Amino acid sequence: MSPPGDRPRSRVSRVPDRADYDLATVGEILDAAPVAHVGLMEEGGFPVVIPMLHARAGDQLYLHGSSASRLIRSSGGSEICVTATLVDGLVLARSVFHHSVNYRSAVVFGTPERIEDEAGKLAALEAFTEKLIPGRWADARVPSSQELKGTGVLRMTIDEASAKVRTGGPVDEPEDYELPVWAGTVPLRTVAGETIPDDRLIDGVEEPGYVGEYRDAHS
Amino acid sequence: MSPPGDRPRSRVSRVPDRADYDLATVGEILDAAPVAHVGLMEEGGFPVVIPMLHARAGDQLYLHGSSASRLIRSSGGSEICVTATLVDGLVLARSVFHHSVNYRSAVVFGTPERIEDEAGKLAALEAFTEKLIPGRWADARVPSSQELKGTGVLRMTIDEASAKVRTGGPVDEPEDYELPVWAGTVPLRTVAGETIPDDRLIDGVEEPGYVGEYRDAHS
Repeated sequence: MSPPGDRPRSRVSRVPDRADYDLATVGEILDAAPVAHVGLMEEGGFPVVIPMLHARAGDQLYLHGSSASRLIRSSGGSEICVTATLVDGLVLARSVFHHSVNYRSAVVFGTPERIEDEAGKLAALEAFTEKLIPGRWADARVPSSQELKGTGVLRMTIDEASAKVRTGGPVDEPEDYELPVWAGTVPLRTVAGETIPDDRLIDGVEEPGYVGEYRDAHS
Repeated sequence: MSPPGDRPRSRVSRVPDRADYDLATVGEILDAAPVAHVGLMEEGGFPVVIPMLHARAGDQLYLHGSSASRLIRSSGGSEICVTATLVDGLVLARSVFHHSVNYRSAVVFGTPERIEDEAGKLAALEAFTEKLIPGRWADARVPSSQELKGTGVLRMTIDEASAKVRTGGPVDEPEDYELPVWAGTVPLRTVAGETIPDDRLIDGVEEPGYVGEYRDAHS
């Protein structure tokens, strides 16, 4: 990843104190978000945004999903924009005007290419699977050559990146602090519920430990 | 909203059994998502995806956020794509190939315009505030004329819309049901934590009932 600040389109033009160009921050946000929103240009010149699964290895971003073929068909060799956002809380100010949300978002640009070789696809699928839930790759049946052939996986080098983060409580106008209006933050987080085992598990197959660890980490 | 199915770009080309063109479904997904991802074309012809707050009234979609000015500057009169996605669970199949997530996503197209009149902006801000947390509009200080002037709010008619939903457990290859691999679903949901009251609340101001109701609805 090259520093994003020197190219104008990655500059965060509004509320620049919320901008964070630290590339480690961008990576953390991407890694924490279960899906990314991919913007591409369709033939005819209009933008389309599709949700896709993603995984990252350094400055390489993998994209996967039922829309991979549409993405490849549409963007072939063109730059795309991939954005991931986590909403961390509602920020209730005394005035409507200063209501906000706490969030972390990352915006990256790059030009995706279809991974053609089997080893490359396998590495990408391992990254997706381990991002979904760490520990799973070693447990599930790995893809066959036939399955790999039918999988559309994209890889792009992150050429530009920026992050934007809001944290903390409301900030009101000085005179509004005297209003008898409750103000504060309502934290939001994603939690994992009780697992739903598949109906057709064979006898004696127990829920793996890493599923419990995932639940503990999302409680 | 006009039926989306008769225009090719809103057709869900892959896994069509997951496509749902019911416009009520599209609206429910938009309403449940705290942020939307807005795709627009920047000058120079590349797509940018920015997270924005949104609210809906029938087929009218409001957009709000620090990037509103960028959006207006960039898209002036051009069509944009607004996508909202909710991730409902991890789907762990016996084979890596069939891993998935349960999700609901809505994709809508329209051409935004800046709301110029005070009454229109006020209606939009009420919609945003009540979407953020129902009950808040009647409690917080309403915007002044000065604040309304400084607020960039966009409105667009939803011209096309589609939704895509995956629910249920894993679907494996017939022969994989004999594998001793655990399979099932890990449900995910967004919960609200204990509120963090602002440091400078005046004495005697209690947390409003609707905040507790919101927390109960997100528990």
